[in-house]
Order: sequence, then C-alpha cells, then structure tokens
Amino acid sequence: MHALVLQSDFGKADGAVCAMYGVAESVQPGLRIFDLTHEIEQYDIWEGSYRLIQTVSFWPEGTVFVSVVDPGVGSTRRSIAALTDDGHYIITPDNGTLTHVKRLCGLKCVRLIDETVNRMPHAVDSYTFHGRDIYAFTGARLAAGVIRFDDIGPEIPQDSVVTLPLIDPKMQDGAIEGTIDVLDIRFGSIWTNIPHSLFKELHIDYGERVQIEIRNDTRALYRNVMTFAHSFAEVFVGEPLAYINSLDYLAVAINQGSFARAYSIGTGNSWHIRVSRSPF
Amino acid sequence: MHALVLQSDFGKADGAVCAMYGVAESVQPGLRIFDLTHEIEQYDIWEGSYRLIQTVSFWPEGTVFVSVVDPGVGSTRRSIAALTDDGHYIITPDNGTLTHVKRLCGLKCVRLIDETVNRMPHAVDSYTFHGRDIYAFTGARLAAGVIRFDDIGPEIPQDSVVTLPLIDPKMQDGAIEGTIDVLDIRFGSIWTNIPHSLFKELHIDYGERVQIEIRNDTRALYRNVMTFAHSFAEVFVGEPLAYINSLDYLAVAINQGSFARAYSIGTGNSWHIRVSRSPF
Amino acid sequence: MHALVLQSDFGKADGAVCAMYGVAESVQPGLRIFDLTHEIEQYDIWEGSYRLIQTVSFWPEGTVFVSVVDPGVGSTRRSIAALTDDGHYIITPDNGTLTHVKRLCGLKCVRLIDETVNRMPHAVDSYTFHGRDIYAFTGARLAAGVIRFDDIGPEIPQDSVVTLPLIDPKMQDGAIEGTIDVLDIRFGSIWTNIPHSLFKELHIDYGERVQIEIRNDTRALYRNVMTFAHSFAEVFVGEPLAYINSLDYLAVAINQGSFARAYSIGTGNSWHIRVSRSPF
Repeated sequence: MHALVLQSDFGKADGAVCAMYGVAESVQPGLRIFDLTHEIEQYDIWEGSYRLIQTVSFWPEGTVFVSVVDPGVGSTRRSIAALTDDGHYIITPDNGTLTHVKRLCGLKCVRLIDETVNRMPHAVDSYTFHGRDIYAFTGARLAAGVIRFDDIGPEIPQDSVVTLPLIDPKMQDGAIEGTIDVLDIRFGSIWTNIPHSLFKELHIDYGERVQIEIRNDTRALYRNVMTFAHSFAEVFVGEPLAYINSLDYLAVAINQGSFARAYSIGTGNSWHIRVSRSPF
Repeated sequence: MHALVLQSDFGKADGAVCAMYGVAESVQPGLRIFDLTHEIEQYDIWEGSYRLIQTVSFWPEGTVFVSVVDPGVGSTRRSIAALTDDGHYIITPDNGTLTHVKRLCGLKCVRLIDETVNRMPHAVDSYTFHGRDIYAFTGARLAAGVIRFDDIGPEIPQDSVVTLPLIDPKMQDGAIEGTIDVLDIRFGSIWTNIPHSLFKELHIDYGERVQIEIRNDTRALYRNVMTFAHSFAEVFVGEPLAYINSLDYLAVAINQGSFARAYSIGTGNSWHIRVSRSPF
Repeated sequence: MHALVLQSDFGKADGAVCAMYGVAESVQPGLRIFDLTHEIEQYDIWEGSYRLIQTVSFWPEGTVFVSVVDPGVGSTRRSIAALTDDGHYIITPDNGTLTHVKRLCGLKCVRLIDETVNRMPHAVDSYTFHGRDIYAFTGARLAAGVIRFDDIGPEIPQDSVVTLPLIDPKMQDGAIEGTIDVLDIRFGSIWTNIPHSLFKELHIDYGERVQIEIRNDTRALYRNVMTFAHSFAEVFVGEPLAYINSLDYLAVAINQGSFARAYSIGTGNSWHIRVSRSPF
C-alpha cells in the first residue's frame, strides 16, 4: 500500500476535500492520505504544476499524487495517469499540470483514464466534481493496490500530453536571462527558473555582489545590487539577497521582509529576471 | 477501529485543533484522524450542519464525526451523539448542527452524552473547551472501540433534537421557489435547496435557457437568463450558468468568476431564488 | 513508533510542508504525522513557543514535535532536541522556541543536533530549508525508532538553551499585574500569563465583577468592569467577560465578538493587564 497525496484549488473551508478523503477511506480503510496543498489559486494550472515539482521527489517511490486544478471539468479534456522516471504516480486532468514534472523528472508512461471503469460506483450524477468521483477514487485504488497502473486505461504517447510553455534560461553577454516561476508565498521570496548550475557560470562567490534586474512585458520594476548569500542570516534584517533555494534554483528575497510585495513582483513567463556580476 | 473526522470553527492558526488530535491519539495511538474543515464561520451552526451533509455519506459506515460549533459552551445546551440511518456517528452540541443530516439522512438513534463519564480524566478544570475535553475524547473512544455507542448515555427522543428552520422548495405557477443554502466558497458558486428531482419538473434540457431571480428580504439582487449546463466548460469564461452540483442540487455560477461576489449574494433562509423557464 | 507533530511558519499554500511530510514518510512509511499549526506569524518565535505549551501535554509520551520558526536559518544558531520532564521530544532551532516549555513543563535533557549525521542524505545543497533536510528528517527518525535520543548528538547544559524573557505576574496592592501572552486567534480572546491559582487570591467568585485595565508601553487602552464567568454562555451576546481559559489561565473576551479587535489589543511583554476586584 502506498501513500496518496492530494492537491487542488478547492481550499479547505468547505467539504470538498473531506469528501475526497472519504472516498479514499471507503476504497481502503487505513490508506495513508496526505495533502500537498489545496490553496492553489483557482484555475492556476501553472502553480499546480510547480508545486508537484517542489514535492514529488521527496516522497517514496510508488506514492500516488492526485492533482485537481481543473477549469475544464466536464469538457473533452482527458483524464490521465502518469508514471514518472523515479516511480511516482500522478493522476490529473490533462491540462498542463504535468508541465514541470515531465520536463524535470521525466515520464516513463502515461495512460488515459477510462472513466467508464474508473469512477466511483453509485456516484451522484455529477459533472462538476471529478476530483471526488474519478481522481480520488482512482488514486486511492491505485495506492491501495486494488488496481494496477495497467488497469487504468490505454497508454498514450507522451508527446500528446498537454504542457504549458516553459522558457529556458540562457546566458547571454555575461548575464543570465530567466523568468520568475513562483513565489515562496508566505515569505515573499521570488523563485526563478535559473538553476544553480547555470548561475555558477557567472563565477560569483558567496559573499560577493550580484546585480538583479526585473521587468515584465510593460516596464522595469527593479534594478539593484545585492549580496549573494548562503541564507537570509548572512545579511541584515530588511536587506535584499540572492540565494540558492531549496530546489537548487536562484531566488531573491528580503531578509524578514517580502520582496514580492515590496516591488509588486508577479510570476509567469512575462516576468523576466536578468542576473549579472555587480558592475561596481 | 473506525476513522474519526473533526469539524469546528476554531481555525488551524492556534493549537486548539492540535490539542484535540492529541487527546484522540492518547485515547488510542494509531487512530485514523481527519479534518472535515475547521474554517466554519465562527458560531455558524447552519454552515456546520451543511458541511456534514456534504461529506458524511462519502465515508465508510462506522465513521465517527465530531462537530464543534458551540456558541453555547458552558450553558445548559446538551451534548449528544447520533447514529444516522446509514451508520455514521455524529457527536456535537445539541444546537442545530444535526439539522440537515436529520432531514436528509435520517437518524436511527440519538443519545445524551453523560459528561460525568465521557470526559477526559485529569482535564484542566475548563468550561470553555468541551471540543477537547468531551467531544474529541468521546469521539476517539467510540471510533477506537473503547466504548460502544450504548455506553455514551441514555437514548433521547429524536424530536427533542434541536434543529434550525429548513424551508422546503416548492413549485408554484410554473416556477420553483427555493433558498440559497450555502456557497461553494472558493469558486463563489451559490448552492440552492432545490433538488435535481424537483428541477426536472420544469422540463428544461441541458443547453436550454433558464431564468434565475434572486432576492433577499429587502430587495431583488439578480434577474437574468442563463444556460443550464452540465458543467462550467460548456459556457464561455465569464458567462453565468445553472447546473446540478456535486450533491445533486441546483447551483448557479459564473465560469471562472465568483457569482456570489459579483452580485453580493448571501446565504440562509432570507435569501430566495426563483427558477423558471426562460420567457424568450 | 511514536507520532510526529510538525509546526512552522511556512503556511500550507506552497509545497514546503508537503516536502517535510514526504521526507518523514520516506524515513518510515506509515509513520503517523500530524500538524500543530503552520500559520505561526513569520519569524514569531514567541508564538511558536506558546503553541507548544498549548498542545504538548495533550499528546502521548514519546511524541516527537518538530517546530521550525527559524529566522536564523543558515546562521550559527544551534539545532537542538529536548526531552521534557513529561517525556515529549521537541526538535527546533535554539532560538527561544523552548521558552514556555522549559519554564512550565521542565526539560530533562537537551542535545545538540549533530548536523553532519542528522541530515537527509543526497539532499540538495540547501542552506535555507533545514526544516526539511534536518528537522523533519531527524524528527521522523526519532519517532520511528531508527535512532535513539542519545544518537542525536552530545548533551548540552540546560542553561545554555536560548529563552525569551518571560515576565512573572505578581500580586501588588490587591491587584494582579500580568501580561498578554497570546490571542485565541479566531475568537479574539486575549490570554494572559495569570494562572488560575494566582487569580484565586483575589477571592472573586464566579458571577462577581472584576476590573480589567490594559495598557501598552505608550498608553492605556481599556479600563472596565465585567463579569467573571465560567464560560461565554453566562453573559449576553456582545458582553465582555473574564474567564479561566482551557490552559487554566485568566482570559478576557467578548461573547461572540472580538475583544482584541474591538480595543486593538496586541500581545507580548509590552502589553500589560491589571486585574482587581470591582471598586463598585
């Protein structure tokens, strides 16, 4: 029996997540069920995709993730189950939720969920809550070993899986151009798509200074020089810093302040960051 | 051993819910404990009642629910334990929390909790946290099989159980008059008390148009014609729709918007909805 | 195998807490993992300390608490593991998080965490997320019995443990001078550092009236007379009351209102409360 980990944009203020838990417990009493988060911004598939990459690899092989950020529920969008190269399962609408995992973990096999079979029996005739009736039900049966991955449905080509556009960071004229992927929400740090390995090519040592420029499609929002530090504690309270985050990517923060709020920084492909050695 | 599911209006920002979990784990290490939600609006018994009906039936027979929305803690309000017709247990102050479950699931037996026996030993002499000292303790013991339902206290007449007034929807002059029971909080959809079966009597097919009027006791807030759809994906983004929700009741929403916020719609018996065939 | 209980200021909107859970599940599939809260105000060590005292004693002996409110992550602040007099373990940065537990529960033994050994293998080279790489990992191993408490690292003197200043309440001229420790967040009650035993020395019976004065370092914010009641239900809705809270300390509230918000009351050592018999 493997763990089942649920993610959604439902919040936990009403009964939706609890109904999913109940379905899973009904499939197999004693199943270990956990939350990734249910506070994904409504319909924000990108954020759902990112939270998977932030967590999946820390769980044991065989763990089953169910992610339900599903603006297209009831449309013809497919329901799929993926097995990653590292042996984690992810069950989700095929709407881009696998974007980061496909790129960064790799997928071994993707199957179409046959909804005629993989659906909670006697379910209310609901067209709006596949998270409960199909995804939690199927995820619980897979985690509990009631069905095997093969039973879920036919394999589909990996290149048919819907993905959102991912922009690769690049080195150019001695600077790295990247984008801002996501926020470390409560602390207001901004997390970029620039991996530690690429940043190293700038040959900036810990304690040295780095120039950070941020712009979106309409204007420049930030340009300043700050310390590249191991962690927040190496700069003063209120001082900005660049650092390598817990996923091994470059991030920018204010020690005990919110960088994102201080400069009204957002996330996504239209939020650009340029990183270079300090000019002075 | 059965699962224990906790609901309250305590929030999870302080230690209250964790103390309840600790009490339950102390009764029986390894007990499976889950949350319904702890974000019920403070003192909102109606919402607590509704969240039970939204979730109870998806859990296995024997599951023990503890619901603590308890404005009268320390008063003479009774503490009760109910067994539903489907075999779920609910432990709660007797203040209306069982309103929906009693009407829609039916109760097989209700017992008065004998607080002299069913109280955590050595508890601090607290008059304000029965959720921890009595309800979680008793729920955990029932779920763990330490006590049987009979041990909780004497049976009481079902018609002595406190209920909040429930207004039945009714068909009149070719229109259905109902009320707005609750919100699908994060998505801003409004959920009515009009069951699918009653709505069918209007003979409106999927894809046809339906007229929705909403008023409270002081004024009309909404009157418009919209599509009756299986799900959000059948209308444009930003377009309103009527649909059958995941509990098989009529609901109204804006695809990827918040209907409740757009028109300042509230919930409860003073919020009326009138549903009829589109006049044009 | 003992339960593992996690506390932090990370919130649950991103993947940080889920990554900690994954690490713990990887150490020992089937480990029972729970949350205290993850909504501690960012960097608020005092609140983290208080939430431990609010909950620890309700859990079975042997339960392992991991608390990560860690403004100094990456600095030279120590990581420690404490065994309380009652047999609970607490793993935390040594930054004051043990203040209340040390004073009110007592510590039997404190050990320095040897981070060269007690660190998740193959972890990303992260300096900013010890909650995942060291604390959750070590807490899970201790809870699962993979390591013994002795294996964590060398014992350190108890008086070397960092604590925040705690002001003792005192009786003076027939009144008790105390401070406001914390809020019962959702209900807006204020919880003082005045234990029931000290309050009893005023010889005020339930139903009698008590005078409450509140001031901070700059001004007086409240002075009024209210009923000393067992619980909220003994006063009118909207009426203030003094009562003994669920930790056996004096608290002040408005029945179904928020005392803290009504009078803009904060918490900490600069928030003073004076309690005396009603002068009339």
